[in-house]
Amino acid sequence: MASAKSPEDVRRLAREGTLTGPTSGQAHGFTQANLVILPREHAFPFLLFCQRNPRPCPVLEVTEPGDPVPRRYAPTADLRTDLPCYRVWRNGELAGEPTDITDLWRDDFVSFLIGCSFTFESALLEAGLPVRHIEQDCNVPMYRTSIACTPAPPFAGNLVVSMRPFLPAQAIQAIQITSRFPAVHGAPVHFGDPAQIGIEDLGRPDFGDPVEIHPGETPVFWACGVTPQVALMQARLPLVITHSPGCMFVTDRRDAELAGI
Amino acid sequence: MASAKSPEDVRRLAREGTLTGPTSGQAHGFTQANLVILPREHAFPFLLFCQRNPRPCPVLEVTEPGDPVPRRYAPTADLRTDLPCYRVWRNGELAGEPTDITDLWRDDFVSFLIGCSFTFESALLEAGLPVRHIEQDCNVPMYRTSIACTPAPPFAGNLVVSMRPFLPAQAIQAIQITSRFPAVHGAPVHFGDPAQIGIEDLGRPDFGDPVEIHPGETPVFWACGVTPQVALMQARLPLVITHSPGCMFVTDRRDAELAGI
Repeated sequence: MASAKSPEDVRRLAREGTLTGPTSGQAHGFTQANLVILPREHAFPFLLFCQRNPRPCPVLEVTEPGDPVPRRYAPTADLRTDLPCYRVWRNGELAGEPTDITDLWRDDFVSFLIGCSFTFESALLEAGLPVRHIEQDCNVPMYRTSIACTPAPPFAGNLVVSMRPFLPAQAIQAIQITSRFPAVHGAPVHFGDPAQIGIEDLGRPDFGDPVEIHPGETPVFWACGVTPQVALMQARLPLVITHSPGCMFVTDRRDAELAGI
Repeated sequence: MASAKSPEDVRRLAREGTLTGPTSGQAHGFTQANLVILPREHAFPFLLFCQRNPRPCPVLEVTEPGDPVPRRYAPTADLRTDLPCYRVWRNGELAGEPTDITDLWRDDFVSFLIGCSFTFESALLEAGLPVRHIEQDCNVPMYRTSIACTPAPPFAGNLVVSMRPFLPAQAIQAIQITSRFPAVHGAPVHFGDPAQIGIEDLGRPDFGDPVEIHPGETPVFWACGVTPQVALMQARLPLVITHSPGCMFVTDRRDAELAGI
């Protein structure tokens, strides 16, 4: 997982077109973020949706309209070029997956950087806890739940969760550790019976890959950053741009800075 | 301080015009909140100012435009009548202090409920820590600092802090306790030398009343909810409505629910 590259190195490789795939393990120790870009007219209800649903939508930074520079999390970066891959959504449908969005940029675009579970996974690994999807070298399994988010019209939808299996004593430690990171989803929302939150089959995640659950382990569920993406798609806005799955924005802040206590 | 009245009792007394003064000590154990009401056109930059300055501006709830009901924190309340006293600001100047704002209400008004230090003071008192301004039965002393908030145009300004003196061991405990309450200002921002944050004379607060500092005690400074009010006044918007100092909105949520960990 570890990489000696700096955040600026990773962003430069993305800008040059050399890095077009996932950023997992890049610039180890630095915070990676989900990206959502919207026209100004939709920025208030989207920020409100995030304020009302802070577990799945922990906002790290919101840029000024038209400004592609995240001045607090990476003042030398350019959000139009510095991610490996983007997704362009028109009327809720995927309309393209470019590696640069300079030609699509508009003066009324507002960018949201949203916390990502990579941050707390680093803390779990440093505490010696096993993180199954990292052990299996695949994506974390994610599931749609029956838990409704608090709407902020036109944004609404159900909570999406990620799952990591742990032995009970490990799960308790994982709850303690992730509680310290409210800016990146914080404590879990559920553990144990998946049916209680509307998940039918852990072996068939809605996003990502299935992972093994060993004897004695309990599935533990965290609010997931895919939740705002689902709410965005359901709102069928004329134009939204996001990062491509796994191709996050690498910031200049350290994961440890995000620890709340 | 304690009161057997329910939040609904306190709100009804305010609505009827029986309670027109401070809410400190009313509906003990329930969260009280600062109120800011703005036209929709200013709601996005103000929410952004709060997002960028979460210590002084911890947003508890934002209502839908035109809706006077805080549906998450007190679904049976009416923000136009249920505070003891309001302040109406026109172009940054105080233009009135009514006990009811029904006649001023507009379809484009958005209301913000912002966390208040009463919540963490309850936790400090329950831990047996002395809270000097409560002992002296006066308002907490508050000071303008030299620390600039992160602007969100048209909103900008310096941080305002409240001060409570403690012995060092008490201060450490107070840091631990308030860290658990990020939704109501969280951990302190400074302790010790007031000059380091631009405060000239602790005996002359900019807001509230001075308090005694006993031998061996250190002043401890927390981000204060007056900060967004100062930013609002400086922006000189045509119309803003806030609560009158000390006359807070009493919610149905318990202080203990706001503990982050």
